[in-house]
Amino acid sequence: MAAHGAALPPLGLGEVRDAERRLRGRIHRTPLLTCAGLDRMAGRKLFFKCELLQKTGSFKIRGALNAVRSLVEERQRTGRELPRAVVTHSSGNHGQALACAAQAEGIPAYIVVPRTAPQCKQDAIRAYGATLVPCEPSDKSRAETACSVVQETGGVLVHPNQDPAVIAGQGTIALEVLEQAPQVNAVVVPVGGGGMVAGIAVAIKALRPDVKVFAAEPSNVDDCYQSKVRGELTPNLHPRDTIADAVKTSIGPNTWPIIRDLVDDVLTVSEEEIKRATWLVWERMKLLIEPTAGVGLAAVLSEQFQAVPRDVQNVCIVLCGGNVDLRSLTWLTELSGKAE
Amino acid sequence: MAAHGAALPPLGLGEVRDAERRLRGRIHRTPLLTCAGLDRMAGRKLFFKCELLQKTGSFKIRGALNAVRSLVEERQRTGRELPRAVVTHSSGNHGQALACAAQAEGIPAYIVVPRTAPQCKQDAIRAYGATLVPCEPSDKSRAETACSVVQETGGVLVHPNQDPAVIAGQGTIALEVLEQAPQVNAVVVPVGGGGMVAGIAVAIKALRPDVKVFAAEPSNVDDCYQSKVRGELTPNLHPRDTIADAVKTSIGPNTWPIIRDLVDDVLTVSEEEIKRATWLVWERMKLLIEPTAGVGLAAVLSEQFQAVPRDVQNVCIVLCGGNVDLRSLTWLTELSGKAE
Ligand SMILES: Cc1ncc(COP(=O)(O)O)c(C=O)c1O
Ligand SMILES: Cc1ncc(COP(=O)(O)O)c(C=O)c1O
Repeated sequence: MAAHGAALPPLGLGEVRDAERRLRGRIHRTPLLTCAGLDRMAGRKLFFKCELLQKTGSFKIRGALNAVRSLVEERQRTGRELPRAVVTHSSGNHGQALACAAQAEGIPAYIVVPRTAPQCKQDAIRAYGATLVPCEPSDKSRAETACSVVQETGGVLVHPNQDPAVIAGQGTIALEVLEQAPQVNAVVVPVGGGGMVAGIAVAIKALRPDVKVFAAEPSNVDDCYQSKVRGELTPNLHPRDTIADAVKTSIGPNTWPIIRDLVDDVLTVSEEEIKRATWLVWERMKLLIEPTAGVGLAAVLSEQFQAVPRDVQNVCIVLCGGNVDLRSLTWLTELSGKAE
Repeated sequence: MAAHGAALPPLGLGEVRDAERRLRGRIHRTPLLTCAGLDRMAGRKLFFKCELLQKTGSFKIRGALNAVRSLVEERQRTGRELPRAVVTHSSGNHGQALACAAQAEGIPAYIVVPRTAPQCKQDAIRAYGATLVPCEPSDKSRAETACSVVQETGGVLVHPNQDPAVIAGQGTIALEVLEQAPQVNAVVVPVGGGGMVAGIAVAIKALRPDVKVFAAEPSNVDDCYQSKVRGELTPNLHPRDTIADAVKTSIGPNTWPIIRDLVDDVLTVSEEEIKRATWLVWERMKLLIEPTAGVGLAAVLSEQFQAVPRDVQNVCIVLCGGNVDLRSLTWLTELSGKAE
């Protein structure tokens, strides 16, 4: 086991606690809400951690701000100048979050964005004062462009899910959940690159090893599930499309060992299940989650979840984001007839 | 002044405190959320009281449950049998709320509903186990039908906004706000029949007379504004249409004296302002409010509000409900281009 994890920078409860301290007073402590109607449907008591109500509309500000603040603290400690810039190649929630975090600290941010990215996402990043750097819509072009931006600006790349400071930042979700609902028996977390579920698993298993940590993933992009089944990191070579666009990406070298060792199980769900769960949260809870945030509830409402023992009675679901493009609601209107 | 108020049953802070006790543990303590982006637009610090996240999707459960619990307590005290039924003629949020409250207490509920009411509202009421009684879509038919249902069932009519127990129940919103944000300088409350703003005004002015209470109303149905201007109850004889459908109704004999004496000002807003504010709450706060709940933010963002002194710095807006029909979102999609 040690061999697998050898490349991983030490990441434990201490790093998550440090992140908590760095974030204190700078982000929202998001509410944990309940919904009697959904409890009845699930046959368990559900607690919804409302990260869609977080600054920037997703939990991603936790990791991004922890990374930026860590850089700032470290430079101050060592008497060096502040980083000249931060750079990333996520046009999604991490891009927004890093732009917001950098703005708060007065550091320039460069966000590499495929020319094809939706206008609303580009606008949101620009609104936080970041510089957009267009690239071709291919992984190769994104990586290359980010690399040259780093060189030109003398900036620091903050990876959306493999950076240890990002993983530790996401772990602060778990600290809040354990305080807000000490009675939880399980936490269900959508997984893309795995930064969120890894950070949460590190904190939960250190503090409350009895609490289960489940990753939830669209069947169409089930690399986390495949990796757990095979016991080795198995990225999606040809990811299919999914409405849960924020988790299309695969887990990576830093999140895999944590997921392998600390995540209890991976639950996969269909596109229909994701849409229905998203619709239910909108209709019953009045929370405008993005479909990616519906993945967790979809897993808990799935047949598969019936097999989870009944003593896992109190289940926390992370509603991880709300950055849905309101101009493209047609699928919801189409679905409306179907969800009961 | 006494003459005006002579018909009004005594309603003061004591009744609101009693309501608080009756509701404790039976409803949600809804979160008070903030949004830096909207603060910047308003030029003040805003606090959003999230009653759309309340049980039944609106604050109406407060008044309805206080009315039902008051009936139950009173009958128990006097050794009489429980009410045979509760009855109302609101097909909207109060209808749902009364159905839910009655179900919780094991009392039958009869809700008089115009044949033309949207199916989704009828379904929601039925889901709480209430009996729907169809009537013609006229005020006369509604009142007559409700009256005969009361006679046939031996039930008690619970008026959606003139019942003193309903008004007192809505006032509990203010007790929570003062606890959650003691720094507030003003509270902005959408007004329909006036139960909510009257209950809130009673509590606020008893506890913190320095805090302003503003009613917010669509210009298309400005009876509260007209009443304040003329100094006498002036119902809308020919209410125009408004997207804020839950406040189309006029204030009445029990809420008017309280509004006259305790509400500082009435702010009116256009349909465009309501739509834009609703859109902003959806997009920036990820909260699925119904347009009626957009009326308060619309007022605070209006030019008119610029005249409110700058020392009214901390403003609480009640996001009163979220029962929007997701199947009818076309106006939002149409609007999306306009709201910046
Ligand atoms: C809303 C939302 N949920 C979940 C995820 C997945 O997080 P991770 O990549 O850390 O697994 C993301 C990542 O972008 C996201 O934006
Ligand atoms: C969502 C919502 N907001 C505001 C109101 C107005 O409340 P009131 O009639 O007590 O003024 C109502 C009444 O139905 C409502 O449902």
